[in-house]
Amino acid sequence: MEIDLKNLKGTRDYLPAEQQLRNKIKNTLENVFQRYGYRPLETPILCLFDILASKYGGGTEILKEVYRLKDQGNRELALRYDLTVPFTRVIGMNPNLRMPFKRYEIGKVFRDGPVKTGRLREFMQCDVDIVGVKSTLAEAELMAMAFDAFEQLGLDIFISYNNRKLLTGVLEDIGLSGNQVNEAVISLDKVEKIGEDGVREELAAKGIPREIIKKIFSIFREGRRPDYYTAFSSGPLVREGIAELNELEEYLAALNLLDKIIFNPLLARGLEIYTGTVYEVFLSDKKISSSIGSGGRYDRIIGGFINNGEEYPAAGISFGLDVIYTALSMENNDTWTEPAVDFLLIPLGTEKETLQIARDLRKKGLNVEVEMSRKRLKRSLDYANKERIPYVLILGENELQQEKIAFKDMQTGKEEKIPLAELEEIISKLEK
Amino acid sequence: MEIDLKNLKGTRDYLPAEQQLRNKIKNTLENVFQRYGYRPLETPILCLFDILASKYGGGTEILKEVYRLKDQGNRELALRYDLTVPFTRVIGMNPNLRMPFKRYEIGKVFRDGPVKTGRLREFMQCDVDIVGVKSTLAEAELMAMAFDAFEQLGLDIFISYNNRKLLTGVLEDIGLSGNQVNEAVISLDKVEKIGEDGVREELAAKGIPREIIKKIFSIFREGRRPDYYTAFSSGPLVREGIAELNELEEYLAALNLLDKIIFNPLLARGLEIYTGTVYEVFLSDKKISSSIGSGGRYDRIIGGFINNGEEYPAAGISFGLDVIYTALSMENNDTWTEPAVDFLLIPLGTEKETLQIARDLRKKGLNVEVEMSRKRLKRSLDYANKERIPYVLILGENELQQEKIAFKDMQTGKEEKIPLAELEEIISKLEK
Repeated sequence: MEIDLKNLKGTRDYLPAEQQLRNKIKNTLENVFQRYGYRPLETPILCLFDILASKYGGGTEILKEVYRLKDQGNRELALRYDLTVPFTRVIGMNPNLRMPFKRYEIGKVFRDGPVKTGRLREFMQCDVDIVGVKSTLAEAELMAMAFDAFEQLGLDIFISYNNRKLLTGVLEDIGLSGNQVNEAVISLDKVEKIGEDGVREELAAKGIPREIIKKIFSIFREGRRPDYYTAFSSGPLVREGIAELNELEEYLAALNLLDKIIFNPLLARGLEIYTGTVYEVFLSDKKISSSIGSGGRYDRIIGGFINNGEEYPAAGISFGLDVIYTALSMENNDTWTEPAVDFLLIPLGTEKETLQIARDLRKKGLNVEVEMSRKRLKRSLDYANKERIPYVLILGENELQQEKIAFKDMQTGKEEKIPLAELEEIISKLEK
Repeated sequence: MEIDLKNLKGTRDYLPAEQQLRNKIKNTLENVFQRYGYRPLETPILCLFDILASKYGGGTEILKEVYRLKDQGNRELALRYDLTVPFTRVIGMNPNLRMPFKRYEIGKVFRDGPVKTGRLREFMQCDVDIVGVKSTLAEAELMAMAFDAFEQLGLDIFISYNNRKLLTGVLEDIGLSGNQVNEAVISLDKVEKIGEDGVREELAAKGIPREIIKKIFSIFREGRRPDYYTAFSSGPLVREGIAELNELEEYLAALNLLDKIIFNPLLARGLEIYTGTVYEVFLSDKKISSSIGSGGRYDRIIGGFINNGEEYPAAGISFGLDVIYTALSMENNDTWTEPAVDFLLIPLGTEKETLQIARDLRKKGLNVEVEMSRKRLKRSLDYANKERIPYVLILGENELQQEKIAFKDMQTGKEEKIPLAELEEIISKLEK
């Protein structure tokens, strides 16, 4: 039988050069997360469906995209579609966790949705969350952490932010009813995607009067600073939203980040989760137009999920490893693709001795490959060239008798015989 | 609705202290793999069922334990149950890969099997494989790599090894037919698990005459060295097996590993895959009786799978992250659990300045947490104690006016006020 070897649409392999870059991104992010005091958590991919499907598990929209399956015991299972529901479950299952609890998780999530450019069905999410802090200090730190992370990755970013209390408060004060507010928020969130006219059409189709739509746009167009809304409304939600935005901005000013953040009064980040600050991270050069990270404050989700009467104020930020990978691949930054090893050792009838030497060098922390397929020397040197291995060591039987080894610098082409006894010393002086 | 928060049986969470240890194991393994010139590969968890179910995908036994599902397009999917089938698929789909191709993959695999102690349904596998090398140099290197890896992890191991050609060759020469050989191999592989008497029963139940069973045991009991079988049989399979074992042992002698390896002529490692050398890694103290790593040579699998007429000699080794984690947890080695951060910064009405200081310290590479929940000072110090954070910095408004900060060594309890201008210098001199 012929098997047609392929991947499921929306999934992909990452070959070594690609995966090296992905690992570099992952390690960089982890390192920055740790500097901010976040600790790793790992949760299972396989979940009980009922928990994912609960009211606080992300809403009904997302359930359409959940991969479902049954096991041999006929249990209803599902693959996780985000890292927030598992995180919430962990907090509920471990009542003795010390608060504030700060964790990051980097792991695969799965969504059975339409495959668009850059959107996969199996992808790697990097989430950082803190539970137990009410102050916008949390959001300020998470935003600062995003700047640090992308600086480390060599990507220039800006962050767009808003406060959900402000947005919903203004819409309520204009006179929209509860459900209309939600519908309006969903549409307004799409301004970047479908343009102002598109949003106007959507709002009209949802039955919101043209007069009101006009008013909404005039207010939000004029209100480019949080304080604008002080004069506009004195409702409690709007006031709280403004106060939180002011506090957050003070912290961001102290962190010297004001010139890299943009207040966007229409930003909502979906309906279900967020209760306060929301933010989205974008590349400054907009090479990728969608956000490369996002998050915000969600004070009611965890408490609602666990339902034990306790409060769980929380804020988080999530980075898409795949979109960051795409951004860095576009840079085509040559320094990312490193050779697998620093040395290729070629035995010419001296396999045993070469194994010894290789192991000694590895014990010194060097990355060493031994030629094992008994190719001709020329082909082995060719291999080293193509793999961009900087140094080659050739041990022939003659050299071995003289207790020497041939050392070849692949960049200069220079070759010399050096005493085996001096090998480690000579190598330790090489530039990496 | 009350939701009963729990995990699917056979899956589990790893809380930060546990996950830190797992990450340490993962990083240690990756580091050693890289030193041997192996490069990372990542393949999807979601697979097309037909590819997993193909004849060369691992046999029918394993298919009973495969999690199957369908997507919205009604495609037959499955979760991968190992990393070998995806690896093989990658080689088939990328005909221009330079050989030898050396890769490692660390990732989740899924098996819907019985949950025994230490056996999970979702677990992390660490596979290292090399394709394109016929010589037992490959196996010698993989075994040496295992010793290096476990030395780095602080675990003392030995490796039990055999050659499948020798085992099947002897059984054929005794007079067993093709199918009897396979049945005998399956039973003999269980000696460690069910004892010699158990194996005798199984073999008898499979219709193998008592006389032959007796002969099998007397041969293998006496043949504790490969060369024993030279006198016993001159069949081509046995001869090849002995030659390969001799070569492998020469390499292992050169690597100084002879006292840590044990020839076990009954070792088979299952039926379907292996064609030559097989090996299993065990803890020397046998705290865990099952193997903590295993592998061997499988020269026919990849070629059979790809079916393009090419030869793909291959060898590999696989480590179970979870069993290594269990072994290291049993050691209860205190050095593994590290505090999340080196410094806790406590603002007392000085949030903005504290954020600045924290960010500066992080830019120097330090791990810093800012107290954000506005606890009382005593409770914050308590938190630092419990989290074993070594140093606390307290910035009150008075200190800020004097351009100083309180510095507290949590181990000695000593507290002093130091000038903010000297903070970085003082900190850079601290022992970690």
